[in-house]
Amino acid sequence: MSTVAALDRHRSAPNPAHEARLRARRGELTGHTAGIAPGFVQGNLCIVEKEYATDFAAFCQRNPKPCPVIGMSAVGDPSLPELGDIDIRADLPRYRVFRNGDCVDEPTDIRDLWSDDMVAFVLGCSFSFEAPLIEAAIPMHHIERDTVVPMFRTNIDCVPAGPFKGKMVVSMRMMTPADAIRAVQITSRFPNVHGAPVHFGLPDQIGIADIMQPDYGDPPPIVRDDLVPVFWACGVTPQSVVLEAKLPLVITHKPGSMLVTDKWNADLAAF
Amino acid sequence: MSTVAALDRHRSAPNPAHEARLRARRGELTGHTAGIAPGFVQGNLCIVEKEYATDFAAFCQRNPKPCPVIGMSAVGDPSLPELGDIDIRADLPRYRVFRNGDCVDEPTDIRDLWSDDMVAFVLGCSFSFEAPLIEAAIPMHHIERDTVVPMFRTNIDCVPAGPFKGKMVVSMRMMTPADAIRAVQITSRFPNVHGAPVHFGLPDQIGIADIMQPDYGDPPPIVRDDLVPVFWACGVTPQSVVLEAKLPLVITHKPGSMLVTDKWNADLAAF
Repeated sequence: MSTVAALDRHRSAPNPAHEARLRARRGELTGHTAGIAPGFVQGNLCIVEKEYATDFAAFCQRNPKPCPVIGMSAVGDPSLPELGDIDIRADLPRYRVFRNGDCVDEPTDIRDLWSDDMVAFVLGCSFSFEAPLIEAAIPMHHIERDTVVPMFRTNIDCVPAGPFKGKMVVSMRMMTPADAIRAVQITSRFPNVHGAPVHFGLPDQIGIADIMQPDYGDPPPIVRDDLVPVFWACGVTPQSVVLEAKLPLVITHKPGSMLVTDKWNADLAAF
Repeated sequence: MSTVAALDRHRSAPNPAHEARLRARRGELTGHTAGIAPGFVQGNLCIVEKEYATDFAAFCQRNPKPCPVIGMSAVGDPSLPELGDIDIRADLPRYRVFRNGDCVDEPTDIRDLWSDDMVAFVLGCSFSFEAPLIEAAIPMHHIERDTVVPMFRTNIDCVPAGPFKGKMVVSMRMMTPADAIRAVQITSRFPNVHGAPVHFGLPDQIGIADIMQPDYGDPPPIVRDDLVPVFWACGVTPQSVVLEAKLPLVITHKPGSMLVTDKWNADLAAF
C-alpha cells in the first residue's frame, strides 16, 4: 500500500476520539484519558459564567504559554464544532465543580449545571507535545513509571486580566542537555500546547526551592548528574488562577480526565 | 516608501561585501572582517589538494554541525560563483599556509601557491547566527567587550573520513536560561552556520574541565550564577582536524579574516 493510501485509510478509520466521547457521554468512561485515541489532541476544560468570560479570554490571550486556547464556545452553547461533534456538558469522563474556589463535586455529567450563561474554554495540554518527544526517543520518565509529571508554582507572574491573576505553574521533565535542545526545537513547533520551555537548569531562579517536592503531581522518578530539569508552562495555571479568583461557579475537568477532540496533534504544528 | 521599495533599494545598493573583497584583492584590506558588510555571510576557508578533497568533503558531510559547507570550488578553479564574483586566491584579507601541519606563512595573497590541484571549501561561521541573536536582544558578551569568543576542544568525536578525524571544537556563550531557549530556536533556523547548540549547562559532560580556560580565544568576559554556558559546534573543528592530518599543504583564512560573500545571512534561514 502506498503511503498516501495508508494515510487515507488511517484518517478514514473509525474515529477513536469520537468513540471515547460517546462512551463518556453514555457514562461508560469515567476515568483517565491518558493513552486513549493516540494522535488526537486532548484538552483542559475551564467553564466560567459569561460575566467573567471576557476577562478570562483576555487572561488567556495575555498568557498564551500556560493558557493556549484551542476552543471556545458561544455563550450558552455546549457545542464546539471546530473540535468535533461535542457536547461539552457530557463528553468528559469526569468534571470538577468549584463554588467560591472550593471543589464541591466531581460529577460525570454537568447537564443540570449548564445554563445560558456558561462559556466553555478548551486549552491545549502537554499530552500533545509529549507524543512527538517520545517519537524523538526522548525519555518521558513519568510516563515510563506511570507517575504524574511534577508541577511547581513559580515566582513568575502571569499578566493579570480583571479578577484573574497569579503565578505561573510549570511542569518539569528531566533530560540530558542534548535532548533538551531537541525538545526546545520540537515543542517550539506546538505553540498551541504550551510551546517551548520557559526555563531550564536553574530551579531557584524561578522560585523552586526543591525539585523533589512538587506542588502538584509526583516527584521526578529519575534524577541524575547528567540530567537537567526543563520547565514548561503548565495547564494547571489557569485552573489555579480561576480558583483563586473565587468565582461563584467554575467547572473544570478532573485532572487526567480530559476532553478528547477530533483534532490531530500533527495538525497543531506551526511548521 | 513602501516596505517592498525599501527592500529593493537596500538590495540594489552598492554591495559592501563585493567592495570588501575588491579591497582585499588590491591588498588594501589585510585585517579582521568583523563588522564589515553587516548582513552578509562570512565564511571560513579551507583549501586542500585534490588527493584529499573527497575525504574532506565526506568529513564535512558527516559532521555538518561543525563543518557546514556553503561553497566548494571545482578542482583548480579559484572562482565560487554561487557566493559572488570571487577569486579565492586573493579575496581574503589574510591567509595561513600550513605544511605538514605547521603554519609557515600568513600571506595576503596565495596566487603563487594555487595550482590546478587545489579545491577550496568555504564553511559557514557563527558571525551569521550572532547577528540574529543580537537582534533578539540576547547579549553577546564577547562582542560587547571586543574579545574573541571562548572555544574548547571537547571529548565529542567527529565522524572520521579518510585521514580526517578528531574531537569537535565548540564555542561558548553565557546567557540566561530564557535567552538560551530563544537562542536554540533562532540558531535552529540556520543549519548552514552551525545550527542549534550541541550542549549547555554541564561542561564536564563534554570534557571541559574549566570554562575560564578556553583552548582558543579569550575567557568568557561575564560569568554569573544566573547564566548558563551554551555550546555551539565551531568552525575551528575542521581546521584542527585538517592540521592534525598533517597534509603536505593546507591553506586557511587567518582567524578573524574571513571570506565576505554576497549571500545574505537571512537567505540562510531554513524557515
